Amino acid sequence: MNNIQSYIKEHKERFISELVELLKIPSISADSAYKNDVLKTADAVKTSLEKAGCDNVEICKTDGYPIVYGEKIIDKALPTILVYGHYDVQPPDPISLWDSPPFEPVIKKTDLHPEGAIFARGACDDKGQMYMHVKALEYMTVTNQLPCNVKFMVEGEEEVGSSNLAVFVKNNQEKLKNDVILISDTGMIAQDVPSITTGLRGLSYVEVEVTGPNRDLHSGLYGGAVANPINILTKMIASLHDENNHINIPGFYDKVEELSKEERAEMAKAPFNLENYKKALDIEAVYGETGYTTNERNAIRPTLDVNGIWGGYTGEGAKTVIASKAFAKISMRLVPHQDWEEITQLFKTHFESIAPKGVTVKVKPHHGGQGYVTPIDSIGYQAASKAYQDTFGKTPIPQRSGGSIPIVSLFEQELKSKTILMGFGLDSDAIHSPNEHFGIFNYLKGIETIPLFYKYFTKLSK
Amino acid sequence: MNNIQSYIKEHKERFISELVELLKIPSISADSAYKNDVLKTADAVKTSLEKAGCDNVEICKTDGYPIVYGEKIIDKALPTILVYGHYDVQPPDPISLWDSPPFEPVIKKTDLHPEGAIFARGACDDKGQMYMHVKALEYMTVTNQLPCNVKFMVEGEEEVGSSNLAVFVKNNQEKLKNDVILISDTGMIAQDVPSITTGLRGLSYVEVEVTGPNRDLHSGLYGGAVANPINILTKMIASLHDENNHINIPGFYDKVEELSKEERAEMAKAPFNLENYKKALDIEAVYGETGYTTNERNAIRPTLDVNGIWGGYTGEGAKTVIASKAFAKISMRLVPHQDWEEITQLFKTHFESIAPKGVTVKVKPHHGGQGYVTPIDSIGYQAASKAYQDTFGKTPIPQRSGGSIPIVSLFEQELKSKTILMGFGLDSDAIHSPNEHFGIFNYLKGIETIPLFYKYFTKLSK
Repeated sequence: MNNIQSYIKEHKERFISELVELLKIPSISADSAYKNDVLKTADAVKTSLEKAGCDNVEICKTDGYPIVYGEKIIDKALPTILVYGHYDVQPPDPISLWDSPPFEPVIKKTDLHPEGAIFARGACDDKGQMYMHVKALEYMTVTNQLPCNVKFMVEGEEEVGSSNLAVFVKNNQEKLKNDVILISDTGMIAQDVPSITTGLRGLSYVEVEVTGPNRDLHSGLYGGAVANPINILTKMIASLHDENNHINIPGFYDKVEELSKEERAEMAKAPFNLENYKKALDIEAVYGETGYTTNERNAIRPTLDVNGIWGGYTGEGAKTVIASKAFAKISMRLVPHQDWEEITQLFKTHFESIAPKGVTVKVKPHHGGQGYVTPIDSIGYQAASKAYQDTFGKTPIPQRSGGSIPIVSLFEQELKSKTILMGFGLDSDAIHSPNEHFGIFNYLKGIETIPLFYKYFTKLSK
Repeated sequence: MNNIQSYIKEHKERFISELVELLKIPSISADSAYKNDVLKTADAVKTSLEKAGCDNVEICKTDGYPIVYGEKIIDKALPTILVYGHYDVQPPDPISLWDSPPFEPVIKKTDLHPEGAIFARGACDDKGQMYMHVKALEYMTVTNQLPCNVKFMVEGEEEVGSSNLAVFVKNNQEKLKNDVILISDTGMIAQDVPSITTGLRGLSYVEVEVTGPNRDLHSGLYGGAVANPINILTKMIASLHDENNHINIPGFYDKVEELSKEERAEMAKAPFNLENYKKALDIEAVYGETGYTTNERNAIRPTLDVNGIWGGYTGEGAKTVIASKAFAKISMRLVPHQDWEEITQLFKTHFESIAPKGVTVKVKPHHGGQGYVTPIDSIGYQAASKAYQDTFGKTPIPQRSGGSIPIVSLFEQELKSKTILMGFGLDSDAIHSPNEHFGIFNYLKGIETIPLFYKYFTKLSK
């Protein structure tokens, strides 16, 4: 596959412009106002798979947004790789913090991306990383170098919990049969430090509602005499962490995997500079659970974060009101062995139990998923490692990610195969944030590395 | 003045329709989008004063919204009453909870208002109660029964702190010279229990901003490792009350007036039914400072309430983000002798001091005002008491209100005269809330009672 570089060089501009077109469609799955755009994106993905050489490409209906499926079966005797990605994106809020409109991609150079980066919502998560696989397939089919069978499954509900994908996978085990699952929806440590994600955190996402009086009240006439739902909500949320930032929910830590000294020492080898980290975020100090390092806090430890809070008067000026209701969106990142449904129940029971008289509390589970760990001695991991060695000249570092891809554990359970997470994004790519971007270098490096995974995985499978 | 009833009977429909027209103008002083409507309302008030017989009516410019001034001087030897009111209203949010549009007044009968009530923002606070005085003046001038001099001062910034009124009063002491100030911007205990407000709480209103990382972050990649501004804000706000709902700000209670057993016993005589109170608000229990009754908590004790809170993703669905900033609007109701500027400074110093490393905090004072107490042995109080006795057949009960009319203490300081608070609204009129209303009975009873105050005040002044 030594002509991959030249193929990329030759088609670079087209590779970029095709991705830019895909990024222009605001496929925000969380907001029903964008329904048509999400569906439009599914069609665009279907077309791109056909052009790349996939057969039997279809848009599979679900109770939510459709799943785009396509395959290229060259020989049933050869191994099959199932590529997963998602075409939906996070909401771009807060829009005002974007330097350019989130759905009008622009290419700009940055310190970390001297070759330029594409700025747009979804550039990295996950349209850009998903599209690397489409272009890698194009290369292998056009140059007749596809060494094994491949199946694509691209969904449109990853950012809202993939609940319909779960159903789809359960009902299509034969169709999705594979020897390894390949996903690019994570990051790597640095441009010159390739890494393979070997662990993911689980997730439990809930929304809480605290109701006090049956109507908004004048804070002068009622202030001090009735429970103020916002004050109560702050008290309840604050009580969820103790003075060591340990989570205060009975049973929450019961199944948490405690890593050995050796494992923690291994993790500590990953290059990390606390000063640069703080500088990049413009914070004076990091903050988290006592007794753990920053890299441990965001990878091997569970968390509880408020993702949104609202209640009362939030407009211009002042309104002296006691709101009838207050709300918060709260997510918990879970580590392997913590069951997200069990944790969601523990949260619900506890949160309802700490509500004082004078308010009523509703806890509405949004979605969730299990954590995941993959062994580094599998054929898949070895193939990925060799691929990176060829393109980066370095052995990739196995890395635990703090993020969640809930469906990975589902795949293992339903399809009985391991997932290899080859991420090419950087933490600084600001996924889920304003000014999300994806480096041209990373994009093309992914297209270059993926076919090598196919090659080595096929070889090692013999 | 025994023909006042017949005059009201004769002009009732017009009195109501004129008020309805005034209520149609959305004079929301807190929201600059309504600037023209606020100004339009000032013009409408000017016209109404002229029609009611006022001389020298003028719209006095300020750095904010104008103050409408008018007067009727019949004899410099006679006492002068200064009537104060405001033509601006609270924002109607949340609009969705209104049964009818806030600025399209409708008249509906309710259990408490069998003769009907006008539903609209400002119906009671304060357009309705202010307009009672305009109609009372009309009656006295038309029937040639005005017993003394009268001056009107109607402002458009009461709901946002009256800062420009303060300047106006300081600069116009001669013009505003008076023997007593008369205000209807409070309530009475019940339809059949007239009361005169003898105390008001002061106010300090601040907005706080907590900033963590310089951008929104992915809660998976950073969750647990950096301070989440929303979690921190909830912790900081929660810490402002102790387990007895005592406010946790050093020095906050230093100047709080402690009432004697006798005074508290006197207060306790006011008719109050806790079960009905809870039922009306649809709450299982009241909530407040340990050791005080509901009526004490909302009248003679200071409070700290969050009036609004926001941060992160508050839209539909789920977004796994750690927000860069979180905000809250917080107001403190103060009791006599607490200085609002001093309390604001105490809050600022304390709130900034409890911010953990990893976040920065800004405290922005909005506005405030002092508390107020008026003696019940003054001529003004006696005149008001007699007026109520004539129209309600009962001696009104002196009552401490939990609300704030910051300018009352300013009037005493600058104009050296006492204020009499003759309120005709009910707590259930939902001022500052959706479905604010004002009873037709209350509106007309006010118009009937006010001229009697003029009569008795003039008599007692001799």
